[in-house]
Amino acid sequence: MTTQTKPTPRERLLEAAATLAYREGVGVGVEALCKAAGVSKRSMYQLFESKDDLLAASLERRAASYAARLLPEADDPRSPRERILHVFEQLESQAGAPEFHGCAYLAVQIELKDQSHPASRVAHQVKGNLTAFFRGEAERGGASDPDLLARQLILVFDGASARAGIRADKLTGLIVPTVATLLDAADMH
Amino acid sequence: MTTQTKPTPRERLLEAAATLAYREGVGVGVEALCKAAGVSKRSMYQLFESKDDLLAASLERRAASYAARLLPEADDPRSPRERILHVFEQLESQAGAPEFHGCAYLAVQIELKDQSHPASRVAHQVKGNLTAFFRGEAERGGASDPDLLARQLILVFDGASARAGIRADKLTGLIVPTVATLLDAADMH
Repeated sequence: MTTQTKPTPRERLLEAAATLAYREGVGVGVEALCKAAGVSKRSMYQLFESKDDLLAASLERRAASYAARLLPEADDPRSPRERILHVFEQLESQAGAPEFHGCAYLAVQIELKDQSHPASRVAHQVKGNLTAFFRGEAERGGASDPDLLARQLILVFDGASARAGIRADKLTGLIVPTVATLLDAADMH
Repeated sequence: MTTQTKPTPRERLLEAAATLAYREGVGVGVEALCKAAGVSKRSMYQLFESKDDLLAASLERRAASYAARLLPEADDPRSPRERILHVFEQLESQAGAPEFHGCAYLAVQIELKDQSHPASRVAHQVKGNLTAFFRGEAERGGASDPDLLARQLILVFDGASARAGIRADKLTGLIVPTVATLLDAADMH
């Protein structure tokens, strides 16, 4: 016999906020969030200061799984070049799903247009971690200019996520050759 | 003595919609739009079917000036390579302004999350024209794979616009070398 813990109201709110904000945008209303979570507004405001804080907490909660779905395992024995390409192969594969709307952490910053919003701060941090991964691999792989290469890779990552999210490009035959060209130019063979 | 035509209510609404949607997002309310335009809601609904149509019309109205601020003149005698780089130099320069929030035509598609929305359709068309410019120059310049290069350039354009818009990167020392690398790899010297 298995025992499964029922999600708490807090967990249900975090899940609803992450899902609905991703699918419909950060403008999703408190009513809709509470309804989706099956939680009263009164309970929501007992658990979170505001919708902004709920949104920020929901983005923070998904940060670990976001990274896990993109990055290679820490003990992945492949070369830095291959570990970087892994991220873009993952993105290309995720972008093919019908429910893909681009990178949640980019979208929230574009939508909020306010870098001091708690959710923007979380998003900025999460993407900073991805840039730091690129920077670290670039350095380990002997890139001629690891800072420039890391900026290029996160730019391609965001451009690709955005364009796939709005269905302007499927990324197939695009991001892997593009990243390979940038890695070549940085002497990361 | 100069005579200046006073903007009509229609023009004031289009201007307010373009400005406020860019600064605050597509969720900006009808009340706020009418207030900024100095037009009653009743008048607005006589001029436009809906806020969605107003938004689409406002994006369409700015399409010509958007292109003019990015593209070289039609009779610009520079090489295709230089004409492509011109677009990115313009973007880098625009991204430095405090009121820059990225490409309006990318943002609206990310925010609406609905490719069938009239405003998304306008935005998709405007960015398609920019991609067509890249494709034409790539072909004229003898790029090894003009389709791939055009997809790469619009990806870099969108990634750069997005990252500068959220203040994650200033683009200086980034997009011109990145585009130059892609042009080199496509044999557009």
